[in-house]
Amino acid sequence: MPISRSAATPRRRFLRASAALGAAALPAARATGAEPALEVPAWTRTPGEPVLWHAYGQPDAHEAHVVRRTRGTAVLPGAASSLTPLQNLHGIITPTGLVFERHHAGIPQIDPAQHRLVVHGLVQRPLILSMDDLVRFPAVSRIHFLECSGNTGVEWRGAASTSIQQSHGLLSCCEWTGVRLSTILQEVGVDPAAAWVLAEGADGAAMSRSIPIAKAWEDALLVYAQNGEMLRPEHGYPLRLFLPGWEGNASIKWLRRLKLGAAPFMTREETSKYTDSLPDGKARQFTFTMEAKSVITYPAVDHRLRGRGYYEISGLAWTGQGRVKRVDVSTDGGASWREARLEGPVLDRALTRFRADWQWDGGPAVLQSRVTDETGYVQPTGRQLIAQRGLNSLYHYNAIQSWKVATDGSIANAQV
Amino acid sequence: MPISRSAATPRRRFLRASAALGAAALPAARATGAEPALEVPAWTRTPGEPVLWHAYGQPDAHEAHVVRRTRGTAVLPGAASSLTPLQNLHGIITPTGLVFERHHAGIPQIDPAQHRLVVHGLVQRPLILSMDDLVRFPAVSRIHFLECSGNTGVEWRGAASTSIQQSHGLLSCCEWTGVRLSTILQEVGVDPAAAWVLAEGADGAAMSRSIPIAKAWEDALLVYAQNGEMLRPEHGYPLRLFLPGWEGNASIKWLRRLKLGAAPFMTREETSKYTDSLPDGKARQFTFTMEAKSVITYPAVDHRLRGRGYYEISGLAWTGQGRVKRVDVSTDGGASWREARLEGPVLDRALTRFRADWQWDGGPAVLQSRVTDETGYVQPTGRQLIAQRGLNSLYHYNAIQSWKVATDGSIANAQV
Repeated sequence: MPISRSAATPRRRFLRASAALGAAALPAARATGAEPALEVPAWTRTPGEPVLWHAYGQPDAHEAHVVRRTRGTAVLPGAASSLTPLQNLHGIITPTGLVFERHHAGIPQIDPAQHRLVVHGLVQRPLILSMDDLVRFPAVSRIHFLECSGNTGVEWRGAASTSIQQSHGLLSCCEWTGVRLSTILQEVGVDPAAAWVLAEGADGAAMSRSIPIAKAWEDALLVYAQNGEMLRPEHGYPLRLFLPGWEGNASIKWLRRLKLGAAPFMTREETSKYTDSLPDGKARQFTFTMEAKSVITYPAVDHRLRGRGYYEISGLAWTGQGRVKRVDVSTDGGASWREARLEGPVLDRALTRFRADWQWDGGPAVLQSRVTDETGYVQPTGRQLIAQRGLNSLYHYNAIQSWKVATDGSIANAQV
Repeated sequence: MPISRSAATPRRRFLRASAALGAAALPAARATGAEPALEVPAWTRTPGEPVLWHAYGQPDAHEAHVVRRTRGTAVLPGAASSLTPLQNLHGIITPTGLVFERHHAGIPQIDPAQHRLVVHGLVQRPLILSMDDLVRFPAVSRIHFLECSGNTGVEWRGAASTSIQQSHGLLSCCEWTGVRLSTILQEVGVDPAAAWVLAEGADGAAMSRSIPIAKAWEDALLVYAQNGEMLRPEHGYPLRLFLPGWEGNASIKWLRRLKLGAAPFMTREETSKYTDSLPDGKARQFTFTMEAKSVITYPAVDHRLRGRGYYEISGLAWTGQGRVKRVDVSTDGGASWREARLEGPVLDRALTRFRADWQWDGGPAVLQSRVTDETGYVQPTGRQLIAQRGLNSLYHYNAIQSWKVATDGSIANAQV
């Protein structure tokens, strides 16, 4: 084959090609030692695996490191979380097998034929629905992010994470399909005195949260499918509540009961947990909305740069208040900023992928991203966030994240 | 628990609620025989499975029937196809484990560290790229459908399929991430005489297609990720070509070589295969674009109606020419039509989910959908398609599909 390997080519061409984009040079193709022979490779010389090798497909064996991981050891194996490997992912859709988990009494094994949703309390016509009943109602599909309000919580105590999977991995984005809760509220007839809805799960914790009825009418969903297929067991099979833009904890999985009441039900998950202690000794309660946040997923603390030259900075931005409006990136720790490219579609309360060209000169650098959402809200610095909220919080940390690049290409988590 | 089961409630409420939508009644909740007790179910009384039961998640055991399936028996197990179970799916994203397959010599097992892409022929600077090189270039992510031009081909000979998985299952829609081919063309410098690009796979068939260079410049992608994670083996790991809106066969998997030339290379896959024989003995060649098509996925031939009353008709529409503009549905075999709801986002060359309310009166019905795309192209009837193309074709069947509902609720595939 008349090929002359031209290692210097990428640098020159990408330089020229990207000049119009304001970008800089791609480094020369890496000298990888022995170059594979250009003759036909071994795997072309033999028949491959048959069709339906897996009737339900699985990742390649070389990707076995791309898995959910826990954060330390839980006291109870069923009361813990697993995190999404953002450092290995692309685009905005999270593959369902890698969507994060947070359970309080493990994953129940539910027979969908036996599962029922009970709707009662301050309603005119209490109702019991089977899954067969539920799927008969008009459905909607929506792409939305899901984030635990404890995501990035370790950063309240300093730059504690050595992996973006550990710092930001309680975050995923899927296409969710189900019935509008408003459709079911119309079925049962809501008593005018009803102001809150208790949602209760069928897991061993009977996980329960109080939801303002306005959210139930506005956009709450009773979800049975995720990324096209039925929910997985760990995500609430066969039925979960889904509250777009709100903290994940409130989107009760394995949903078995909705009770309408005049006041919040003051469950454990909104009194001793999932509240935000403030410096003055008071606590914020029912802080459902996930405020705007962004993070650079490449290059991040998990990666190591392969020498100076061109890199595409890539990351994720999102807001529980609607759409991302713009993202700015800094490579000098916030001294200067420039606008990143937003990759469409930019959807309501979905992850948005941003990209920015970067020419690394080989010197120290600090990479940051800062999102502005359509309400005008700007992601705060860590100092701004702590000035407002103090250091007693566990939840709702959404500050700008800093990745500090050293001259050897290694990257550290550093609060600046 | 003070619940009185009110089986008649859904009918009345959904009637009232949906009146504004022009819809009709939901039937009474089905009498399922023994009603599960309303006390706390067994799975709530015991701790569930631990977090990271599966570090990479899997579907629930009750969904084991939702798998890819083949169409008959292949002469060679590696030269066959598997089909996506559209009858069980929701929304527009196809879960990667269920994305259809079509292989010509099986699925090669490729070491991504050893894989190379060679770009040569009528170029100024031939190039060999490793995967590490490729992922350094700027990337894009796009949601697009992928359809085999043989999809629905069995319908050329009459209503041959008794499952929508068999008739329409060579169709999927994913988020694809990779490098624009135009970026690589800029790197290598295209000779002005170059008009076609040969794309060759690293599988045992060395699958090859000729692509007009205009498509390479316009929107062709070198894809390495699908629905957020690296490609699966059966979808081209670690690298494939992706040609938005074009027949799937041309989006060469396991891509190892791109050769630029002045004329098409006349490979087997564009001479003896993937051409369309016409009534006059001539054949259409290089008919890449997948024309507009739609199909009702529920209720479809796979389903059985549970009695008269409300059903939401739901289906998929797509076009290789851009965006879906509108979908009309008929429940009387095309005698009358009404416009369906398109569920957003309606994306360029992506599946679009449509929905329409339907009140089944219990009598015979024939369900059809008809898409119009943004170019004004209208999906043809089977008769119109055959009048134009004759009956010698295997590929590019995109006629309106009919599902015939009998009074007992069973549904048949019927060409009308």
